[in-house]
This record gives sequence, C-alpha cells and structure tokens, in this order.
Amino acid sequence: MKNSNGVLKQKKSHELLNPQKKLGNTRHSLAHLLAAAVLKKFPNAKLGIGPAIETGFYYDFLLPRQLTSGDLKDFEETMRTMILECLRFTGKKVTPVLAKKLFKDQKFKLELISDFTKEKKPLTVYSTGNIFMDLCRGGHVKNTSEINPDAFRLTHIAGAYWKGNEKNPQLTRIYGVAFDSKKELEDYLMKQEEAKKRDHRRLGKDLSLFAIADEIGPGLPLFYPKGAILRRTVENFIQDLQEKNGYEPIWIPHITKGELYKISGHLDKYDAMYPPMKLKGEAEYYLKPMNCPHFMMLYRTRAHSYRELPIRWTATTTVYRLEKSGELSGLTRVRSLTQDDCHVFAKADQIENEINLMLDMLEKVYGAFGFNDFRVHISTHDPKDIKKYIGERKIWKQSEKILENLIQKRSWSFEIVPGEAAFYGPKLDFIFKDVLGREWQLSTIQLDMNLPKRFELEYTDENGKRKEPIVIHRAILGSTERFLGIIVEHFAGAFPFWLAPVQVSILTINEKTFPFAKGIERELRKSEIRVEIDSRNETIGKKIREAEMQKVPFILIIGDKEVAANKVAVRERGKGDLGQKTLEEFLKIAK
Amino acid sequence: MKNSNGVLKQKKSHELLNPQKKLGNTRHSLAHLLAAAVLKKFPNAKLGIGPAIETGFYYDFLLPRQLTSGDLKDFEETMRTMILECLRFTGKKVTPVLAKKLFKDQKFKLELISDFTKEKKPLTVYSTGNIFMDLCRGGHVKNTSEINPDAFRLTHIAGAYWKGNEKNPQLTRIYGVAFDSKKELEDYLMKQEEAKKRDHRRLGKDLSLFAIADEIGPGLPLFYPKGAILRRTVENFIQDLQEKNGYEPIWIPHITKGELYKISGHLDKYDAMYPPMKLKGEAEYYLKPMNCPHFMMLYRTRAHSYRELPIRWTATTTVYRLEKSGELSGLTRVRSLTQDDCHVFAKADQIENEINLMLDMLEKVYGAFGFNDFRVHISTHDPKDIKKYIGERKIWKQSEKILENLIQKRSWSFEIVPGEAAFYGPKLDFIFKDVLGREWQLSTIQLDMNLPKRFELEYTDENGKRKEPIVIHRAILGSTERFLGIIVEHFAGAFPFWLAPVQVSILTINEKTFPFAKGIERELRKSEIRVEIDSRNETIGKKIREAEMQKVPFILIIGDKEVAANKVAVRERGKGDLGQKTLEEFLKIAK
Repeated sequence: MKNSNGVLKQKKSHELLNPQKKLGNTRHSLAHLLAAAVLKKFPNAKLGIGPAIETGFYYDFLLPRQLTSGDLKDFEETMRTMILECLRFTGKKVTPVLAKKLFKDQKFKLELISDFTKEKKPLTVYSTGNIFMDLCRGGHVKNTSEINPDAFRLTHIAGAYWKGNEKNPQLTRIYGVAFDSKKELEDYLMKQEEAKKRDHRRLGKDLSLFAIADEIGPGLPLFYPKGAILRRTVENFIQDLQEKNGYEPIWIPHITKGELYKISGHLDKYDAMYPPMKLKGEAEYYLKPMNCPHFMMLYRTRAHSYRELPIRWTATTTVYRLEKSGELSGLTRVRSLTQDDCHVFAKADQIENEINLMLDMLEKVYGAFGFNDFRVHISTHDPKDIKKYIGERKIWKQSEKILENLIQKRSWSFEIVPGEAAFYGPKLDFIFKDVLGREWQLSTIQLDMNLPKRFELEYTDENGKRKEPIVIHRAILGSTERFLGIIVEHFAGAFPFWLAPVQVSILTINEKTFPFAKGIERELRKSEIRVEIDSRNETIGKKIREAEMQKVPFILIIGDKEVAANKVAVRERGKGDLGQKTLEEFLKIAK
Repeated sequence: MKNSNGVLKQKKSHELLNPQKKLGNTRHSLAHLLAAAVLKKFPNAKLGIGPAIETGFYYDFLLPRQLTSGDLKDFEETMRTMILECLRFTGKKVTPVLAKKLFKDQKFKLELISDFTKEKKPLTVYSTGNIFMDLCRGGHVKNTSEINPDAFRLTHIAGAYWKGNEKNPQLTRIYGVAFDSKKELEDYLMKQEEAKKRDHRRLGKDLSLFAIADEIGPGLPLFYPKGAILRRTVENFIQDLQEKNGYEPIWIPHITKGELYKISGHLDKYDAMYPPMKLKGEAEYYLKPMNCPHFMMLYRTRAHSYRELPIRWTATTTVYRLEKSGELSGLTRVRSLTQDDCHVFAKADQIENEINLMLDMLEKVYGAFGFNDFRVHISTHDPKDIKKYIGERKIWKQSEKILENLIQKRSWSFEIVPGEAAFYGPKLDFIFKDVLGREWQLSTIQLDMNLPKRFELEYTDENGKRKEPIVIHRAILGSTERFLGIIVEHFAGAFPFWLAPVQVSILTINEKTFPFAKGIERELRKSEIRVEIDSRNETIGKKIREAEMQKVPFILIIGDKEVAANKVAVRERGKGDLGQKTLEEFLKIAK
C-alpha cells in the first residue's frame, strides 16, 4: 500500500525522470544509427527527421525502392555493429552557410535549415563517430557503448508525408522499439503480439459481437445477438446487485430541451455535446451527453422528506458524446456510451454509509470479474486555493476524511491527489490494470454540492425545515461499451462461464443423434444455460474447431455411444476432453 | 366471427350512416333548445354558435354573469318542457336585409351574417315552434317529439373565444351530451366518470409512476422507480417469451447519419423526424424515428446462408417522433416511444411458420394481461390498383392467403380490408377493446418486400445462388409507454400481482414488531417478490388506507399477535381481510 501522504500527480521533478530521459537519449541515438545504416545501404537516400517516441524511435527516408523485412534485418545488423564500435556522439553549433554545405545532398535537411534560419533558431549538428552527421537539437548518449545492442528492434514501416502534409512527397518511416534490457524488449514485443491477438475490434468481428456501419456512423457500434447478450449479462449483473442493495431503477429519455442544461450549467461549459435540434416554434433540443441533470429534475418533480433519504436512483441508459472522429476506436472510444449511472440523494450524515455501500458493491463486482489489480485515486481539494471550491468547508473536510478512512480500511492500493477534486466535490477513481498491464479508469464515485444548488433541490428535515441534499454520483463499469472492449481484451474473448454469450455448444456426430441432442438442449435451457446446437452435416473435427474458435466454455459431443449411455462427451475450454458425463454431472461442473 | 368477405373500411355508404345522422340532428336540435332556454333566463344573452359534436352538442353565449350548476339544471328543465311541447323545426332562406333585421340584437349573429354575405354564402334561418329562431345551415329533427327528453344532459361549461381567436371576447360554452336512450346516456356518463378515475395521467401521479418536466420537454416522460419497474416487468415478459421462442436480442444506437434514411427512403417521406444535428465537417445525424433501417444495416454487415434463416432479431429500444405538441397526452401520445421491435429475415417458404409463431406469442401475451376482447384487421392489396404494390405477385397472393388462413383458424374476430395494405406488403393489426369499451391498436405484423430490396439484402441458397430474404416486422405492445398508459387505465392502477410494481406492503403495528417484519421482507425478497415495508410511527388504520390507495395487491399486517404466532395477517386487494396465515400459506395465495 502506498503512503497516504501520497504522490502528487503531474508534479514529479525532472530529477526523478532521469532514467526515462536516459532511455529517451538511447532511443534518439538509435534513430541516428538507423539513418547511418540506411545510408550505408542506400547512399542516395534522402533523410527526413528521426525523433525518439514513447517506446522507441522512427526515422523518415526517401528511398530508391520499397523495403522488405530483409532490409530491416540488415539495418539492425549494421546498427548493432556500429554500437559495438563505441562511437562518440558530439554536437556543435553551425552557421547556416556551413550547415547548407554539410547537407548539400540532403534536400529535406536543406529545407529545415532554411526554415530554422527564417525563424532565427540556432542550428546544431550531431556527429556519430565519423560515420554519420545529422542536423539535430541533441539529446543523445555520449557513446554508443551505453546502448544495449540486444534491447532494440526495428518493428515495421509506414508511409508518412514530409512534414505531415499530403501535398509533400511520401517518405518511408521505419519504426523501432528500444529498452534498457533484452528482457524488457521481449516483454514488450510479447505484449504487443498478445495485444494484437486480443484486439477487441478483431475479436468483436470473429466472435460476432458488434459491427460499425459507415451508413450509421463512426463510434456508434451495433451489437449482434452475442454482443447484445454479453451487454445484457454485464448490465443485469450490476442492476441485480444494485437492487439487492436498496437501489431503485428509474427511466429517463435520451433528449431534453436546452433549458435543462442552462440550469445545470452544461450548455456553456460542456464541449462534447451534439449540436441542437431546432424545432420550429419550439425550443432547441439536445441529445443528453450525461444523465445527472435528468436525475436532478426527476427528484425536483416531487417534495421529499428526510424519511425518504437516502434516495438511491440508478439508470442504465445511453448518452451521446461528440468525440472527434479520428479518436474513435472500436468499443473503447465511442460516441454512444451506455452508463450504469447512479445518483444518491443523501443527508450529510449519510455520506459515510453510502460511500461504504458503494465500495462494498465495487468490491463484489471486481471480484466477480476477477479484477484483482486495481488502485484508487482519492482526489481532494487544493488547500492553497480554497476559493475555487463551492459547498460548505465542513462537508468538504468531513467527506474527504471519510473517503480516506474508508479506502484505508480496505487494504487497496491508493494515492491521495490534492488539487484534483472537481470544484463541486472530492472524488474516488478506480484504475484497473489488465492482464497486459495496461491501465483503464473504470469506476468513479463523486460528491456533488453544485447540482443540488443549481436545481434548488430540497428535503424537509425532522423539524420541518428545508434542507439541501448532497448528491453522490457513481458508475461502476463507466460505460457498457468501453467495459466490454476492456474485458474482451482482458479475457481474450474467452469469457468466464457466467459471462459467455454461448455457454455450451452441443455438436451432433450424425443425424440420428439429433433428437437426443435436442433433449439435452431443452434441459440446459431449463437450467438457464445459454446453449447452441450444431447439427450441420460437417465432420465432428471441423465442428469442434469452430466451437473452439468461438471460445465456448463447454462443448458437448453427442455420438451413438453417448445416446446409448444417456451421457454427453464433455470438452472444457483450456482443459480439453473431460470424458463422458451424465447431464447432472455436467451441470455440476458447469455451475 | 365476422364474414371473411369483410367490411370495407372508410367506404361505408351514407345510407348506412342514417342512425348516426339522425342522432346528429337530435344533438343539433338540442343545441337550439339550449339557446332558447338560456334566452328565457337571460333575455339579453348574446348567442355565438351551437353545433352537434361527437357525443352531444354545445352552444356559446355572452352572459351577464358566471353560471352555476343550478343554472345548468334550470336550462335542462326548460329544455325538457320544450321537448314535450312537440315544437316543429322549420327552415327557410332569407335575404341579408331580413337576416339583419331578425338578429338586430345579436351582435355575433350580425357578424356572421356580414361574413356570409361577403363570402356569398346563402343565409338560412331555422325556427323552433315560435319560441326560438337561429341563423343556421340546418340538420335538425322535424319535431321535438323525436327527441328523448331523458337521454340528454348538460355536463359542464368552459371558456371559449368568439371564433377561437383570443383577441375576441371570451364566451361561456355550455356542453351537453345526448343519445337515443336513457340507458345509453347513463352508460356514457358512467364510463366518463370511470375514465376520469382511471385517467393514467392522474394515476401516474398518485401511484408515482411517471412525471413530465417542462424543462425537459412535452411528450418525454421520466419514470419514477415504480414506473420503471412496471416498464421493465412488461418489457422483460415480452423479451423472455421471445427468447424462449428462438428470437435473439440485438442492440442498436438511437442516432444515425442521414445516409441510412436515404437508403431506406424515409428521409423524403417520413414527416415525424426530428430535425438533423449538423456536425461540422461531418454528415448530418438524425434521432431514429423507427428501427427498421438499423436492423437492415446490421443484417447487411455480414454474409448470410440459407441455413441461418429465419433470423429473428429483436430490440427493446426507444425511438423519437416529433408529434405535434398540442396532441401529446400522458403516456398514450408521446415523443419518446420504446418499441418491442422485431424483424424476422426469412425465406418465402418460411412465412407461414413465422407468422404462426408470432400469433402464438401474441395469444400468450394477451392471455397474460387478460385481454380477451380484441379483433384483427387483415390489410390486403387493392385488386383494382395492383400497380402501386412492389414485390412478387406470387408472394403477395401466397402471404395474404396465409394471413387469412392463420387468423381464421384461431376463432378471433377479424375483418379483411382490401386496399389497406402498405405498398410493400400485407399486414395484420390487432385492436384491443379496454374495460371501458375504448379501442386501441396494439400489435402489428407486417410483411416487407421493400426494405430488403432497398438495402440489397441477400442470403445464399442451397445452390449457392444469391436470394433476397422477406422481412417481417412485428411489435406486440407497440410501444412500452402507450401500452403502460392503456393498462394503467384498463386496470385502474390495480395491476395483477405479476405486474404490480409493489406486490406486497408489510405494515408494522408497533416498533417491537419491526425485526419480525424485516425477516418476512427478506423471505419474500428471496422468493423474488417486490415488497416494501412501512414502519412509520403512524396508526395502522392510516397505513392500511395509504397502502390501499397505492393499490398494492397484498397487505401484511404485523402486530404482537402475529409475531407470537409466527404468522402474518393478510389483506388482499378487493377481498379484504383473509386472516392470519403462515408465510408459506401466504406465498401459495400470492403465486
């Protein structure tokens, strides 16, 4: 567990970043070595630019021919040889005249020199031993001996326009990755390979989960039956859990007059709103990008007594956000987000119980999905800038203390981030790490002292006085779509039994066994198992392969022997053949 | 059962309408008698107009004072006396000069006379005996003796601007109802009274089902927990039934590029579409007013084999239709409609089975809600105008025959309506009569040979050839919102046990019994019964009254005696006290 005094987000000093900076220098230096290697093979190659990037580096070239993977291997070999030659990196300032002379055969470099000269930027040149020289701002190792020759790899090529402008010539960009150790490189490559296999956009197609249609629009996925069942299984699981804990469902429409967002303040401030629908002779209507204002308004339609509080309302409902089309991706970045949204209207003295109940539920949900690796951000107010927050100071202090105490009790990994609270209240964010080590923000719990004020929400207290409730926002999954994208990749499409859209595939070996298979199907359906039957006139080998491709948890094979024995031959995903079982025995295994 | 040769809708001859026309004359004549009665009491009253309307008549007056219910009684008495005097109605044409003279004290009549004269319309005057004369186009009984003096009633008054223009003076409109017999009048008044009590807008408020907020917009109801649970109970019931019958859920977003509706043809033809959202640098997006195009598009994202057919896809999803704001009403006429939509993609030789399966399901649903009184419209093509229909003639003939045969087998009341089919296929509509005798169109089953063509839908047949599937549209409830509006009124809010949002209320007599009551609550929840507990410090009488107002099917009262006997005192809605029961006994009664 981290110290509760916490790490200040976005405030790490540059000293702390040294290891990362050193790796950046290595990567930048490898880019130069790559250019040197390319020039060795293609002396007339024209060089673009070659920076370090997140996990490695790239360099752009105008080349006399298309590259092959053999070329990349050659370049790697040359680079490795250069590294072993212990070449020094040295930099110096040059005049424009000298620079133009040094790069007289490199038209793109000449263009940069004249750009920099116009902008009155200094010109520097970096040499690698005496084999290569580049126009460069620096950021290199001192000597190639600092570079681990086994910890880099040229990975792939791509087309890139010079200066990113499609009117310019297209260059060949060679990408590389680089780390400090061979192990880190191998880990990274393995994870990349694994991530490609697990890509939910690919699995979404292979497993018939969802589709995106150009005629409907980007970021607006449609779900086939298997995807729709997966959605519903996840959503119903949350809803059932909520209702067992005293939460109640409500229903709200997907649109509203702009008036609602004038009251909430979103109309001026929220920028991912779809443009309005202008009704003749009526108001402007908006697609809702969030649910809070609808919840507030429903609360406001009736008078409330302290006896009713806490009121815990939930809705699984779709909101629409105009994310940039270039940033949309599969299910993880969409324009239609179905939120498992909840708003609790409570008295100040109920905050602790309510947050605790939410944490209990979160723990159950994460447990059910097997999410063990997560951490919590506690976002609190900035004590140096208290003016920017609204609401009573007493409630701020009290609720921040509550959040800290409740989280500390649970032995979860957490950090406190002062200054990260919204102006209307402190919050908790839950960050989940998937099997590939990628982090995803999932759940959020947030106090709100703003919307109750803007909507003038009230309840009557024990003495008949009007009081303002506190609102607690909460989502466990965040959005169904994004959550599905994450779990498809986390489980690589091999969902646990309770989640799998098809839990059991029954395969017949011949036509005669079909009636028996049908009987098994009926029995399984009675036990509320999602089952499908494959009675096609194909070989059993092909049918098994296809069911395995679909990552169905259990395959039941029905041949003459099984019919005679009144049993089923069971194959379990990941375990293979379990032998013949009676239906009863199988049900025990499955559940 | 009606003759299958059927009644031609909207083609009834005027001769057939005679009884209705006669009643219209009676009502119009009563309006004149009302005017005569008003003039008798208020000789200076100024007369507006007085037509027959759907169930009676009205007349507008400028009066010297506000009317009381006593006045209406007086007018009724006077009218009855006039009826018994056997006064003759006689009409004659008059010149503008004469008309102006006859109505010199009636400023509104003078205005009409000058309007008619300008428009060169003939002027006619009708006399009632020698006691009253009105400017009138006619349509009266010959003699007041034809009017049943016991079959009319003055019901209420309302304000109405002269000529409907708010710049004109406001007049007092007196409404009356009139029928042929006293029994019909009494039936009508009783039903009106009952309808008022059952009004779902009123019950929606009293039972905390839904609210409409000005800031969100008209026709966009929000549902409180009880309404949300009612919605879900109804929707889940349909979904479960569908899935047991091999239907599969899909999920589609609420918006789309206009492109989709260009393909479907709705963009030009459908007029209840919300205006588009114009995205900068992107297409125009629309809220979906129907789901069919989304279903078609999802089908088109993959190749399909004849082996997969029939594909039966369903979605419970909200569409948005821009109904005129003046026509919106509670849940029965809304802008947000959640449809239990289904599209079946089938081969022509599967139509019969598919329609039959749909009829089976309809029958089950109507049975579950206790809807016994319904009839079916079979809308077929107009044999005189075959050019206006698309699709193969063979399929039209075959499927119309199928619809007729399948309906005939079920001994349901039906009529065939040639010429009422859509241009793309024949259809079935189900019209349900509620306890008050009002008719509501609910389910619809419709063949579509158009959308598969427009979307170029295909499947590969047994011989590897590409064929076009037939689409069958189907909705059972129509829309959740409208269906709820109808059943709230049909059941007067006293829902059958399985539908009731709260099925059992547990009332404690004193604080000591609370733990026992809590135990009962837990047990009921385990049996998936929706239960609430009222442990307020109020008298048991008040608690019972309030639970009864909420129309909860069962009330369990827990006093010291019940705790001692380990029993519950049961009250059943409509039956009263059932005495003490063990929990087990009660569960048997409830289920």
